Amino acid sequence: MVDGRQRVIIENLSPQVEGGKFPAKRTLGELLTVSADIFVDGHDILSAVVQYRLDNSSDYLEAAMSHQVNDRWTAAIRVREPRDIFFTVAAWVNHFATWRVQVKKKVAAGQDITVELMDGANLIRTTAKRAAAQGQAEDAAILEPFAAHLTEVPVTKAIAIIDDPLLAELMNKHAARELRSRFPEELRVRVEPRLAAFSSWYELFPRSTGSAGQHGTFQDVIQQLPRISNMGFDILYLPPIHPIGETFRKGRNNTPNAQPDDIGSPWAIGSADGGHTSIHPELGTMADFNQLVTAADKAGLAIALDIAFQCSPDHPWVATHPQWFQMRADGSIQYAENPPKKYQDIYPFDFECEDWQNLWIALRDVFLFWIEQGVKIFRVDNPHTKPFGFWFWCLEEVRKVCPDALFLSEAFSRPKVMYRLAKAGFTQSYTYFTWRNSKQELTRYVTELVRTAPRNFFLPNFWPNTPDILPEYLQYGGRPAFIVRLVLAATLSSNYGIYGPAFELCEDAAIEGSEEYLHSEKFEIRTWDLGRADNLQSFIKRINTIRKAHPALQQTWNIEFLQAENDFVLFFAKFDDDMQDILLVAVNLDPHHRQSAWLNLPLKEFGLDEKQPYMVHDLLGDDKFIWQGHRNLMELDPQILPARIFHLKKRLKRETDFDYFM
Amino acid sequence: MVDGRQRVIIENLSPQVEGGKFPAKRTLGELLTVSADIFVDGHDILSAVVQYRLDNSSDYLEAAMSHQVNDRWTAAIRVREPRDIFFTVAAWVNHFATWRVQVKKKVAAGQDITVELMDGANLIRTTAKRAAAQGQAEDAAILEPFAAHLTEVPVTKAIAIIDDPLLAELMNKHAARELRSRFPEELRVRVEPRLAAFSSWYELFPRSTGSAGQHGTFQDVIQQLPRISNMGFDILYLPPIHPIGETFRKGRNNTPNAQPDDIGSPWAIGSADGGHTSIHPELGTMADFNQLVTAADKAGLAIALDIAFQCSPDHPWVATHPQWFQMRADGSIQYAENPPKKYQDIYPFDFECEDWQNLWIALRDVFLFWIEQGVKIFRVDNPHTKPFGFWFWCLEEVRKVCPDALFLSEAFSRPKVMYRLAKAGFTQSYTYFTWRNSKQELTRYVTELVRTAPRNFFLPNFWPNTPDILPEYLQYGGRPAFIVRLVLAATLSSNYGIYGPAFELCEDAAIEGSEEYLHSEKFEIRTWDLGRADNLQSFIKRINTIRKAHPALQQTWNIEFLQAENDFVLFFAKFDDDMQDILLVAVNLDPHHRQSAWLNLPLKEFGLDEKQPYMVHDLLGDDKFIWQGHRNLMELDPQILPARIFHLKKRLKRETDFDYFM
Repeated sequence: MVDGRQRVIIENLSPQVEGGKFPAKRTLGELLTVSADIFVDGHDILSAVVQYRLDNSSDYLEAAMSHQVNDRWTAAIRVREPRDIFFTVAAWVNHFATWRVQVKKKVAAGQDITVELMDGANLIRTTAKRAAAQGQAEDAAILEPFAAHLTEVPVTKAIAIIDDPLLAELMNKHAARELRSRFPEELRVRVEPRLAAFSSWYELFPRSTGSAGQHGTFQDVIQQLPRISNMGFDILYLPPIHPIGETFRKGRNNTPNAQPDDIGSPWAIGSADGGHTSIHPELGTMADFNQLVTAADKAGLAIALDIAFQCSPDHPWVATHPQWFQMRADGSIQYAENPPKKYQDIYPFDFECEDWQNLWIALRDVFLFWIEQGVKIFRVDNPHTKPFGFWFWCLEEVRKVCPDALFLSEAFSRPKVMYRLAKAGFTQSYTYFTWRNSKQELTRYVTELVRTAPRNFFLPNFWPNTPDILPEYLQYGGRPAFIVRLVLAATLSSNYGIYGPAFELCEDAAIEGSEEYLHSEKFEIRTWDLGRADNLQSFIKRINTIRKAHPALQQTWNIEFLQAENDFVLFFAKFDDDMQDILLVAVNLDPHHRQSAWLNLPLKEFGLDEKQPYMVHDLLGDDKFIWQGHRNLMELDPQILPARIFHLKKRLKRETDFDYFM
Repeated sequence: MVDGRQRVIIENLSPQVEGGKFPAKRTLGELLTVSADIFVDGHDILSAVVQYRLDNSSDYLEAAMSHQVNDRWTAAIRVREPRDIFFTVAAWVNHFATWRVQVKKKVAAGQDITVELMDGANLIRTTAKRAAAQGQAEDAAILEPFAAHLTEVPVTKAIAIIDDPLLAELMNKHAARELRSRFPEELRVRVEPRLAAFSSWYELFPRSTGSAGQHGTFQDVIQQLPRISNMGFDILYLPPIHPIGETFRKGRNNTPNAQPDDIGSPWAIGSADGGHTSIHPELGTMADFNQLVTAADKAGLAIALDIAFQCSPDHPWVATHPQWFQMRADGSIQYAENPPKKYQDIYPFDFECEDWQNLWIALRDVFLFWIEQGVKIFRVDNPHTKPFGFWFWCLEEVRKVCPDALFLSEAFSRPKVMYRLAKAGFTQSYTYFTWRNSKQELTRYVTELVRTAPRNFFLPNFWPNTPDILPEYLQYGGRPAFIVRLVLAATLSSNYGIYGPAFELCEDAAIEGSEEYLHSEKFEIRTWDLGRADNLQSFIKRINTIRKAHPALQQTWNIEFLQAENDFVLFFAKFDDDMQDILLVAVNLDPHHRQSAWLNLPLKEFGLDEKQPYMVHDLLGDDKFIWQGHRNLMELDPQILPARIFHLKKRLKRETDFDYFM
């Protein structure tokens, strides 16, 4: 039976995902702020600590919590090691502090405190005995004289004694342990690698990297590495690199019947040349791939592979493991379909098959194979069409071998489905950002991601385009639309990516009435004129340079939307944990017209003096502005520069700087 | 190991209190709506059921759930027995429904479905075999012919067969059980008595019921029963009825030194005449009390006692169980204090004493004693100054003996403290209503109570006044203020109460600068002229009559705040589960001035035709109004009637009623 004298209540621990069923996520270097509702009956004063340990240790560390507001207590812990953290909270009545407050109130009211001082001395003596009994004789030796002094000295001196910080510390340290309340469950925080929090992705089809019209190879990709690295990206992501099926191969623009020279979709995986652990012969050999991984690493780029768990009818597994597919009454295998559409080039796995356990193992082994080839980053295709339980198991299994593996979930599905995949273990997730264009849409969506439950398990990755999605905004907004969406993706989210060549060149030709690229690289080789004068390379490089220089852009959570008095202008602040690096981002969401807006800044929050001018330095245009007061007018011309990223220069406190702005 | 083919995810079950640590609460007769997020990978069609049982049974009942929006599924269960309910949710892929949707899409697209029909026949045969294997041969016998027909008949007939509801029902009934997902925990719903949801409390000091100046007795209270019952109350609540201490007794108006004729506070419990299980001799004997309980019962009133766990220095326990109190260094017992204030007439219990277990038992036994005297309703004084763990244990113990005991928590404390007491087992709770006066305050507070987490465990009880609180609004608002607060308490909340005589007579004299009544009955006998011409008795009776006649007012949860275009006018709708009983309440919150407002009614929501006039019948003034359209103007004069409770008359659909409103 619990000791009924453990009076303190601890509730509503955070971060917590579904009552501890899944770990919360934090990244290396991040602050882990633990919060809880903590209170007691009556009016006693409390003490509370977070007790935490790393997953390879049973030694607990403690971090003192402090009361914020409305019985909410917090402590912030810096995540310094790449190990999961287990934590809980303990709290207890601080009888000494309670006593001290009462005594001081009585002194203030001019009441006699003789008996109170005797009570206090008794409390100290009891505590000293407890310390001694627990082998802390030195602490007991320090405490004893306090007790003696309290009842011997004149009252005025006693009051000085009771405020001694050492006394307070030791009294709390040796408070009766058996009366401590401890939250009964230990909660887990998964510590993800730094790259999980801050990454810039570049997607490229190797097939289009060859010299004009030739099928590109890994060797051709190697040639591109300096250019991509120079733009400031961290991750080079390749669509599936496996042999492509021939049966029911799709032609250009996703037409049903391929011509003999059509090269097919890389997502129709598997042919006589192999399956998920083989390389498409036209791209090169495994040795070439290994060379690419090494060269990329030297260039500061990590290779990310696309894992798409589905088979072309020519995949070796169709013959060797037919039981993994759904057999129809006529003996054929069920292909993917969404009537009336048929995807006869794709066989989905049947996760309800009797042999599901071997299927799970085979799929896990695909990851393990590529990890052996030096790959740690995986973009997973359509994970929402495979069981959540499979992912939970599989990603844990892979992490056992490679703890800093990173999985990006490509689920453009319903909100709860996307969130569940993140809980099940995906590191990062594609989002609805791709279709959130207006100020209200962007504000609402980002607020949902950073202020509600998903904040603890869903690391968003913002993509303005993908090979599957050329959104309307880009189709009709011209070059300014690409700039706007790039700035939004790269500043609203610390993780972002672009489908590269098409984005650099502001490619906006879609199949009529759809979001599909016309002449999509999914089905044919594209020849990109990357040297074109109007390319976005230098702008992209500037964005990535700003991101790397400013901690404010290296996490997604520290954002505050600010008022801009124009519905086409989005205005927000990004800042680091210490508010030392503050950026103000203003974006004209209208790619067609000049918009101006009064931008409202809560000066005090950002440590600015209301009566002094201050300087903001636009890092995009390298322009400097002197602002004063809460409201400043800004014009954003899509044809010149539709967005600004202002670095807020705080004034140094110097006697002589009064003429700094003269 | 869980079967990896259980693909369906069930999350976020509701109602749920702290992950099932505490039961949710519903009352007898109420609808229990169970909700969950339910989804699966891919695009299969799901079925889901609530599985529930009563606490005295292990037989599960099932209620089919239906999809609402955004993967949220619900089922509503009527609570018909006074027994706690345990529930969970099961869900599975409905393969037959999934197949049927695919087939119909293909038919619509003109595609051949020969193989699909064969697949379907196989599915039916497998299911029939499963039914037979599970001893449901009749179901198998019904299913088999469907399979045969499906592949024999022409396609057009097959389509008719697959829509047969019996086929759908049996196919789902015999879907593979081993692939069902089941939410792993069973959640509990505490089923409270009907009175927990709908009650009208009247508080009265027996001391003031005697003939002029005499100390009242239980026999005097018996004389008052018809009057109180006639006003429509259910519960007659008495402040503590125990012997009153003499040491440090408080005098009139809470002065420190009582005069010899001062009768003391009933909350200073215990004297030579006994403690918490004794009766103050001036009130009568235990036999008198028993007579009161019986007489009240006959008059349709339940007696509620005040349980205040504290002792006067003269309480027998101070001598017999000194270990239950905190001893000071000078040998005195610690009295209650909040420096500089001293409450020397009150000794709090020391819940951290070594003998805490016997203390808990003794306090529990106080409840049990009064239950033996026929009392089931307890208003508990200051529960927030006793450990939450004690209450959790004690109230469970008492419920074992008296399952329909009702506990009202008198904690006017911080929000989380009040909510925790409700989780710990208190049936109803006092609220901040007493100090919520403006439209914004009332709207925000009621919305918090009925739309956020507390809805599942916190049953509010709204009191416009108590012997401890004469709020400013009543001090300065005159008779209209009392009417306004009464209407608000009795319509916003299905549980409400008044500190009776003082309320009936609009007593508004307070001690200067405080919320304390001047000449409070807590310290002296008051002579109330209940027959005064301006008393509120008939108005109170009308309010209670309306409450009893209208299911809309018999639960707190079904409320919708509506727009009134004046910040002094609060306008809201109350309705029953079937929207058959709809009331519209309009209240002028300004007790000094006439206010008029355009009242906005969402007609469609309430089943009204936008083009037709409709009648609203004000049940307070017995006035009828013909309204038309969304906006109607209403004037509310505090001197005449500051509030209206409109009953919305729905038009009957008759051919000949077109001239009804002519």
